[in-house]
Amino acid sequence: MSEASPVVPSQGVLRPIPITDVSLREGFWGERQARNASSTIDHCLNWVRRAGWIDNFAAAVAGTLPEARRGREFSDADLYKLIEGMAWEVGRSGTERLDKELLGLGELMAKAQHPDGYLNTKFGHARYSDLEWGHELYCYGHLIQAAVARLRTTGEDEFTAVALRAADHVCAEFGPAGRVGVCGHPVIETALVELYRVTGRQRYLDQARLFVDRRGQRTLADIEFGRRYFQDDVPVRQSEVLHGHAVRALYLACGAVDVAVETGDTDLLAAVIRQWEQTVATRTYLTGGMGSRHQDESFGEAFELAPDRSYAETCAAVASVMLSWRLLLATGEARFADLAERTLFNAIAVSPDENGTAFFYRNTLHQRRLPGIPAVDEESPRAAAGMRAPWYEVSCCPTNISRMMASIGGYVATADSSGIQLHQFTAADIRTEVADLQVDTAYPEAGKVVVRIRRTVEHEWALRIRVPAWATGAHLRVGGSRRPVAPGYAQVQRRWEVGDRVVLDLPMTARWTRPDPRIDAVRGCVAVERGPVVYCLESVDQPDADLETFSVVTTDLPEPTGTALSVPAQYSRLPDRPWPYGETSAMEELSTTALFVPYHMWGNRGPSTMRVFVPEHPPR
Amino acid sequence: MSEASPVVPSQGVLRPIPITDVSLREGFWGERQARNASSTIDHCLNWVRRAGWIDNFAAAVAGTLPEARRGREFSDADLYKLIEGMAWEVGRSGTERLDKELLGLGELMAKAQHPDGYLNTKFGHARYSDLEWGHELYCYGHLIQAAVARLRTTGEDEFTAVALRAADHVCAEFGPAGRVGVCGHPVIETALVELYRVTGRQRYLDQARLFVDRRGQRTLADIEFGRRYFQDDVPVRQSEVLHGHAVRALYLACGAVDVAVETGDTDLLAAVIRQWEQTVATRTYLTGGMGSRHQDESFGEAFELAPDRSYAETCAAVASVMLSWRLLLATGEARFADLAERTLFNAIAVSPDENGTAFFYRNTLHQRRLPGIPAVDEESPRAAAGMRAPWYEVSCCPTNISRMMASIGGYVATADSSGIQLHQFTAADIRTEVADLQVDTAYPEAGKVVVRIRRTVEHEWALRIRVPAWATGAHLRVGGSRRPVAPGYAQVQRRWEVGDRVVLDLPMTARWTRPDPRIDAVRGCVAVERGPVVYCLESVDQPDADLETFSVVTTDLPEPTGTALSVPAQYSRLPDRPWPYGETSAMEELSTTALFVPYHMWGNRGPSTMRVFVPEHPPR
Repeated sequence: MSEASPVVPSQGVLRPIPITDVSLREGFWGERQARNASSTIDHCLNWVRRAGWIDNFAAAVAGTLPEARRGREFSDADLYKLIEGMAWEVGRSGTERLDKELLGLGELMAKAQHPDGYLNTKFGHARYSDLEWGHELYCYGHLIQAAVARLRTTGEDEFTAVALRAADHVCAEFGPAGRVGVCGHPVIETALVELYRVTGRQRYLDQARLFVDRRGQRTLADIEFGRRYFQDDVPVRQSEVLHGHAVRALYLACGAVDVAVETGDTDLLAAVIRQWEQTVATRTYLTGGMGSRHQDESFGEAFELAPDRSYAETCAAVASVMLSWRLLLATGEARFADLAERTLFNAIAVSPDENGTAFFYRNTLHQRRLPGIPAVDEESPRAAAGMRAPWYEVSCCPTNISRMMASIGGYVATADSSGIQLHQFTAADIRTEVADLQVDTAYPEAGKVVVRIRRTVEHEWALRIRVPAWATGAHLRVGGSRRPVAPGYAQVQRRWEVGDRVVLDLPMTARWTRPDPRIDAVRGCVAVERGPVVYCLESVDQPDADLETFSVVTTDLPEPTGTALSVPAQYSRLPDRPWPYGETSAMEELSTTALFVPYHMWGNRGPSTMRVFVPEHPPR
Repeated sequence: MSEASPVVPSQGVLRPIPITDVSLREGFWGERQARNASSTIDHCLNWVRRAGWIDNFAAAVAGTLPEARRGREFSDADLYKLIEGMAWEVGRSGTERLDKELLGLGELMAKAQHPDGYLNTKFGHARYSDLEWGHELYCYGHLIQAAVARLRTTGEDEFTAVALRAADHVCAEFGPAGRVGVCGHPVIETALVELYRVTGRQRYLDQARLFVDRRGQRTLADIEFGRRYFQDDVPVRQSEVLHGHAVRALYLACGAVDVAVETGDTDLLAAVIRQWEQTVATRTYLTGGMGSRHQDESFGEAFELAPDRSYAETCAAVASVMLSWRLLLATGEARFADLAERTLFNAIAVSPDENGTAFFYRNTLHQRRLPGIPAVDEESPRAAAGMRAPWYEVSCCPTNISRMMASIGGYVATADSSGIQLHQFTAADIRTEVADLQVDTAYPEAGKVVVRIRRTVEHEWALRIRVPAWATGAHLRVGGSRRPVAPGYAQVQRRWEVGDRVVLDLPMTARWTRPDPRIDAVRGCVAVERGPVVYCLESVDQPDADLETFSVVTTDLPEPTGTALSVPAQYSRLPDRPWPYGETSAMEELSTTALFVPYHMWGNRGPSTMRVFVPEHPPR
């Protein structure tokens, strides 16, 4: 399939490369994609079966709903996200077992679908009776996204037919002459544009535009969290910043970008870019995580970024990469690939464990007390686990990881007749019309990225390689010459020959990062970054010290020590005192060595306390 | 009535004075009590009527429940809290109009009550079907507390008969041979002990002890927030710290103290004191506010005290004073009166506005953005308002304020045959067996507290006056002599004569207060306190500066400027930057004067941003 990519705009600065033309080899993302294929997808399949989320469809066929139903009202959607992951995986690797499984699910869903295209295992008896919380259109959105993945990688089948019927039903039901409503949880918007892209049917784009335009018209009720929660407080194009429930806000922004790109609506695109800028400047964690508040899983105010209560839901990180990728394709600007890189290596990579069978739902930057170990074989309430859990009552995060990992090759590079643009660095073979590339790198462990030309057209074309924003002092080697390159895209335009080699040397010295003084919660603290990777302290590495009283000496840069980074530090045994305000009595200060490990690795060695930001000693 | 006090233990170190024997004159609390009588109680009565919470009882009589019911499942309890406020007010001032109103409500409730004593407008059709969230026993708890207030101030009537029947019903239903359950929201425990105290009926004490002992036995379901939410995770006497939902935890602790005192259970009392100590040392805001988290209105981890997301529910402050008062009566230790003072002058005094007709539900220590103004005539969702709102969907806070203000005279002093103990300073006339006192003071504006003997027995007795923990350098004048007194209780034992005068001089110089270094969220910040009052910066006083970039120069102490305190300060115009991590470019630093106003006064001059903790310049 020529369009086997997660996002295929008909316009924009950059053109994606099909995931089938980007083979990841052993490396940071290649390993994670392989683990997704060998573990995560089957793990999720077992759990959706065990949790009864597949049986819900069988119950719909048998007519035993609503009594026989199990799971939350939106469980259909988590199954669809998993199917999307399976579709990409089948498209990428051709795994027959998953293909059969998917076809079987499609047959079941076809039977459960109402004649007019309606399909939902929760609300069949009272359609669209609760647009605020019912999630019916949200479920269709994920159904359609899964079908788009399938259509782009394998082609039409019973499952994609189900999705098309559902999409047609939505257009009939919520079109200009239908119900004047939107879903409490956006995602249908971006899904419909993508379905338009793959089918060419204008009605899907029209419906998506209608949904985006309706949002903010206050058609939804004023719930306890306010209409702000589902972005129905103000029209998308008038909003100043992403706000409300973070995943909802980010999915909606994806849909708005898709609509803007397909309809040439430059005002709408500019509005989303402004919102993205404000969000990144004032409401994003160092890890790329988004959404500060537990209560309503929402963005907080500007600089409300307390690490110990950071919510930073895994799904928000996935949605953020989806948005950054859309903006990158639309504009070609490196800043969007920069944020995607930060989010991928930190907020997303931290979620699954080393086996790909347990996941963080929320991703804190500061774990104050030793968390309990979630049962290996039990589901956890949403976001409750302080450690990775195998499954959640709301399991959007594991299934979101599965679809992102199965399709991650699609986010590595773009290509068009003018040349190839390399955005993310991981060992890969990339095949395009103008050339085939072999990328070799141990990134982010090492900073050397080698790009070899394996096949090329004869005429001149440009290779552009992203130089990350953090990479001050990067160099590019082409043939015998070596030149400094600034953040942005380093370009080499020439007639290439097979065997040509371009080497990007990124400076991988660890660096101290200080937060904006308006982020109250981390005033006087530093964090350690190295390349795109955020580091953290884990109590398992500091057996003698209480992380809560730790401070680090920042005179020198952290020293590599295996995969860790070490630095002189102090901690104290603070006296117990009855009231925590007023002058502290003298404390005993003890010297030690702080061992920083990559944030994405934390929590893999048993219960541990952890912190990303650490007070600086002496205070600056 | 000789026992007209909020808490009347049969044992303990101190004995309360009836509220009828403590007349507050014009002064901090006298004004607030008068405002409660003239405004707040009627305001609340209007709202419970308008919200349909009284009509729910009429609907129960008419048999039109559940269809005709309005309000949340626990709205009965908020009406009962208001009735408790009315009962104290009638007892204190004899207001006939309120007395009639109360009797009318009692008649209505008597008609609505089931023959076996069951009474609840929400669950009549499915008794005790949801102990986790149903709040039936919680509603009885407030019904009983109101009846106790009535019995102690006025005597038996139809309303108190309703409460007694309900209490008997509870004992029958949840006694040793009945349902093995507890309520998801504690309060019945303390209510039943108080009912035992006023009636002498042992079964109420036994039932309270049974409820306290059952708590933590995991009879409640494991909800999304965990059993920790309603303290059913661990038995009360094994808990190390107050935890879970703050109001629930504090009400339960009150009940545990009451049971411990009446049964001579010193282990249980010691356990609660340990929990109180841990809570005060690690989980309490400078204002005395408790409960950090919005999501489940719960205590956070140790030192999780971020000011911008402080929840610090008004009801938790009321419950904290209730607990401190019980511990003071039981032990006679000044630290409990100290915390009560801090909580009263800050976390509680901040809730009502200057007219007593709008209230904060949550009490933040840092308001980052200009809040919207809640409609004067509309109810707000729980805790949603950034400014004081006239009513909430959950209106526990206004009604809790009404009962606390009506009975606040009861918290001022204690007395027994050995003498009189003065705990809180406000202009008042105090009548006891041994003597009558006249207290004159402009506290907390001024630090001089004058106690005059207006009547006295002939034999020697001891006057003890609390010297607050913050009051370093206090002096006591008796006759012509003046001596320094240390925090704790200053005692003067002698034969007194009418006209004798004791003067406590408290040092009212403002002071800088620095937080424990483990409170990450305010590292490098200072707060201003003066006497028992916490101060804050409000943006209405700093028209040129953004409070988010403010820092104060702490070389000198803040200077009195009217009711405010002024100090040199700096603020900056920070450049907009696309990413809030990494070195800040040079900022323009501007000098100004910071004007600190009492925290309890904030938000009375229109929308304003606000902060209690302010970064120190230069950093220490």
